[in-house]
Amino acid sequence: MIRRPTLEFWYEFASTYSYLTAMRIEQAAEEAGVELVWRPFLLGPIFKTQGWDTSPFNLYPSKGRYMWRDMEREAVRFGLSLFKPNPFPQNTLLAARVALLGLDRGWTPVFTKAVYTAEFGEGRDISDPQVISGILSGLGLDPEDVTAEAQSDTNKTRLRRLNDEAQSRGVFGAPTFFAEDGEMFWGNDRLEQALGWAATQARRSEVPL
Amino acid sequence: MIRRPTLEFWYEFASTYSYLTAMRIEQAAEEAGVELVWRPFLLGPIFKTQGWDTSPFNLYPSKGRYMWRDMEREAVRFGLSLFKPNPFPQNTLLAARVALLGLDRGWTPVFTKAVYTAEFGEGRDISDPQVISGILSGLGLDPEDVTAEAQSDTNKTRLRRLNDEAQSRGVFGAPTFFAEDGEMFWGNDRLEQALGWAATQARRSEVPL
Repeated sequence: MIRRPTLEFWYEFASTYSYLTAMRIEQAAEEAGVELVWRPFLLGPIFKTQGWDTSPFNLYPSKGRYMWRDMEREAVRFGLSLFKPNPFPQNTLLAARVALLGLDRGWTPVFTKAVYTAEFGEGRDISDPQVISGILSGLGLDPEDVTAEAQSDTNKTRLRRLNDEAQSRGVFGAPTFFAEDGEMFWGNDRLEQALGWAATQARRSEVPL
Repeated sequence: MIRRPTLEFWYEFASTYSYLTAMRIEQAAEEAGVELVWRPFLLGPIFKTQGWDTSPFNLYPSKGRYMWRDMEREAVRFGLSLFKPNPFPQNTLLAARVALLGLDRGWTPVFTKAVYTAEFGEGRDISDPQVISGILSGLGLDPEDVTAEAQSDTNKTRLRRLNDEAQSRGVFGAPTFFAEDGEMFWGNDRLEQALGWAATQARRSEVPL
């Protein structure tokens, strides 16, 4: 059996362009024959080291206005609805911790898509624990158990380590992709290129017996 | 005769992604049936209002490292060579003034491509008046005459007005495109979309007699 090449998908729940990617990456990866490694993380700590206390789209209003217009066009292109959550950016600490917990249990992808849909497809406040609980219930999970475990010291530490890893590997925005050889791609616009790189690189490294 | 729809192409000579666009936009516009309006401008004054005294790719090293790697990949994709000019970003005041002067005389596109090729295709210092003079000579223009007129008060004022216009229309980076209805697109990645918008919008506004 041939092992499928992998692509790491690093995403932040507050990131608008990560929403576009999350909703379409599974099908695109399937078509490319690439296995996904989901990596929910927080951009806040990385932005802080750059001297930013909020999203650059708030700090630089021209860029922010353009981003929302571009998102409107892109959402139409990908067949997605779009709402601007209030406040923007949302506090995504709880959502990221829960998403991280799901990695070993297989439900991170469905949870991730449900959170993005609530946030940018419906304009709901995902910093509200009730919203996260509602999503977990909808997936047949126990909201109290999952939330408690997501807030455990073990899981909190795991998220901090993932954030440190993101920073040390040069992540500065989301979505970010890494192929197995460490090649990095940034932005929803680079998804196809990242998948193509991951697939091609794997073919290159196949040694005929 | 049907008037062709237009697309404004705002570019800064120090901008790496504007290089990618400048070298391919004429053919792409021809294929889309769109007329180009070339708009050389300076990002420096806009960056200053955001508190930046150099390129964001220098201010944010992770982003800068990624950009150069992304440019390597993109240059291969578009069949262009790539050098990092020293210093980066280049001082582009003279080049922008000369490019602006060429607008009414028809040589702005060839001059623009020659400057980008010298800067990013060969790694030459385009802040050096000798380099600009060499380019002008190569185009059969008189370097002394053109440079003197480019540095005239009239032309300097024209460039300042163009920069003010860019800022007031929400330009925050380069390349930036505007369709006739004011729709704005940012980045080499959006060139095809911008041309498509310009062409489609023109078809929509055709009123059958």
